[in-house]
Amino acid sequence: MAMDFEHVKLGILGGGQLGKMLCLAASNWNLSTYVLDPSSDCPAASVCTGFSHGNFRNYEDVLAFGRNVDILTIEIEHVNLQALFHLREEGVLIRPEPHALELIQDKAKQKRFYISEGLPTAGFSVFPGKNSIIAAVESGEIEIPFVQKLSKTGYDGRGVYIVREKKQLRNLLNGESVIEDLVDVKKEISVIVSRNSAGETKCFPPVEMVFNSKANIVEFLISPCELDGALAERACELAELTIQSFNMCGILAVEMFLSEKGEILLNESAPRPHNSGHHTIEAAFTSQYEQCLRSIFDLPPGNTEIKTPSVMINILGQPGFEGDVRYQGFRGCMGVLGAKFHIYGKTQTKPYRKMGHVTVLDDDIERALEKAKFIMGNLRSIA
Amino acid sequence: MAMDFEHVKLGILGGGQLGKMLCLAASNWNLSTYVLDPSSDCPAASVCTGFSHGNFRNYEDVLAFGRNVDILTIEIEHVNLQALFHLREEGVLIRPEPHALELIQDKAKQKRFYISEGLPTAGFSVFPGKNSIIAAVESGEIEIPFVQKLSKTGYDGRGVYIVREKKQLRNLLNGESVIEDLVDVKKEISVIVSRNSAGETKCFPPVEMVFNSKANIVEFLISPCELDGALAERACELAELTIQSFNMCGILAVEMFLSEKGEILLNESAPRPHNSGHHTIEAAFTSQYEQCLRSIFDLPPGNTEIKTPSVMINILGQPGFEGDVRYQGFRGCMGVLGAKFHIYGKTQTKPYRKMGHVTVLDDDIERALEKAKFIMGNLRSIA
Repeated sequence: MAMDFEHVKLGILGGGQLGKMLCLAASNWNLSTYVLDPSSDCPAASVCTGFSHGNFRNYEDVLAFGRNVDILTIEIEHVNLQALFHLREEGVLIRPEPHALELIQDKAKQKRFYISEGLPTAGFSVFPGKNSIIAAVESGEIEIPFVQKLSKTGYDGRGVYIVREKKQLRNLLNGESVIEDLVDVKKEISVIVSRNSAGETKCFPPVEMVFNSKANIVEFLISPCELDGALAERACELAELTIQSFNMCGILAVEMFLSEKGEILLNESAPRPHNSGHHTIEAAFTSQYEQCLRSIFDLPPGNTEIKTPSVMINILGQPGFEGDVRYQGFRGCMGVLGAKFHIYGKTQTKPYRKMGHVTVLDDDIERALEKAKFIMGNLRSIA
Repeated sequence: MAMDFEHVKLGILGGGQLGKMLCLAASNWNLSTYVLDPSSDCPAASVCTGFSHGNFRNYEDVLAFGRNVDILTIEIEHVNLQALFHLREEGVLIRPEPHALELIQDKAKQKRFYISEGLPTAGFSVFPGKNSIIAAVESGEIEIPFVQKLSKTGYDGRGVYIVREKKQLRNLLNGESVIEDLVDVKKEISVIVSRNSAGETKCFPPVEMVFNSKANIVEFLISPCELDGALAERACELAELTIQSFNMCGILAVEMFLSEKGEILLNESAPRPHNSGHHTIEAAFTSQYEQCLRSIFDLPPGNTEIKTPSVMINILGQPGFEGDVRYQGFRGCMGVLGAKFHIYGKTQTKPYRKMGHVTVLDDDIERALEKAKFIMGNLRSIA
């Protein structure tokens, strides 16, 4: 496909921070970006070429929006699939392709797909709801501890519940669920891989995600991940196999567990720019956003090497505050050498909402971590 | 001055590529940017928060625009000064300060200022016009070779004429001119320095500007500049002295000559982001645009070290073409590893117009130069 950069219209379903940063990357090449989001003051609204008010989960909204663009991509996977299949019939280029989104939107389908493709993942079963899970525990079919993941609409740690003792069963979430063996995790890692329609794949180096166990959300993202060479290679190989299996064009963030036994298991994948790739904006030769554009426009992948080690932290809405956002401690934190600030422009803060992120660049990763902790303790998103 | 980032309005006089890239940097911090430019399809129009149609050289336009912002800055120095002095009286923060712009707008004033401050610069005299220059040559007051620089409106090599032989005198430009000794130049270098109101100054490492003699425009910008340590220090020291002398807040690009004798002489300064700092977007820990924001918002300066060597080239309008721009060879050049493309979004190309730039990142500077030459030979801005 030959595409004139000067005249192509890129549509993006969703106008959150990922959409915003994708628009900023597109702006460097003077690409025209069109964003569909239900909120007209979403982060991407102020930086895209054209904003459309509407719901990306709604068939009519996506159809009408998609008919006015040449290439349609996403910044969130929970979009209306029917409309995408329809638009594809009409000749709109959809990237990533709707069949891949269909597999990824539903965690039960995603897990079954890994098994069918021979990709390593933790053992699991699928149950229709809370009562069937409790019955399965009582019959001995599943054993505590385990992880419950709702098949649908899980996002940012929501829809995931870890059961370590029997009395927690009463707090199980309701809805179709994947019940997964609780892996004895040594590290959680993520590899972002890209693929274009020529089948070229390319990985960013693996990163380590350090989770805050309370909020089940990434606390620190460390790049590069400390990993022996063979394991790093294995992680990249798995990421490439995964994107090839999905037979998709675009970028895929592949989250994995490194178990205490030294196995790498697929956790879950997201077919779009991802929190675990924010550091690439300043720390790698190519950002994940540019790589996303390269893959959906069928350009050769950019250099994924890192320029400097980094630690990324999310700026989360401070618990206890909800309303019009104010940032406390911003000026003080701006003095931290090598800290790169990204404020997404969300007008409302709420507990644990992703309001921004900071990537700390430092040749010494321990020092980067200290700086990141300082910022985490001093920069607050409050109301 | 304590400034709430969430609510401050930053005004920018001029909406060209420098304004665009300043807006993109501001967007990372969710700052609101307002741009005044006579052209509503200027590069910055699509990425600023609010665009105002008007002429930054016009008193009324600047006054009306400035009254609606909290901080006013520039991306071009040829703006209406009277309006800035007036706005300052009304309490608008003007950065850089109008007194510095006044000295810099006029090359005769700028040169006299360097002399009065004891800053080294090539010998010169000022003449009211073409005839007085010819008379001075005939009387022996000035000697060929020399450089003629119009005092006003010189920009991008326009308004500069090098006289090497007597017969060129007929082509002298008309208007008040600085007539400068032609320095025996070994290298042309540039240092970008920032200063905030606390008086903190910080330099980016010197870069080498390799000029195309035909168009008198930068052909390659090489970072870091190959320079022995004492000379690099001297260049930075001069840049800091210069910004201190101007007593201004903001960033200043200080262009200098390294003479064959090993002297460093000030050439001219620009109190804004500069072509010689584009590489900092990807090659330095802090970009010149972020540094500009830091200095005008009185934040501590960012880390100016470079992450990787680089060669920057401008994408110039191909001679012989004028009209609606098309880019030729873009896809082919996108395969060059480490090349970062910036297309400004100017709708019209014309000979030697700056349409974009490319920064090639490569640990091996020779290889970066080869890649840059390949792109220069293959990426064309035509009509």
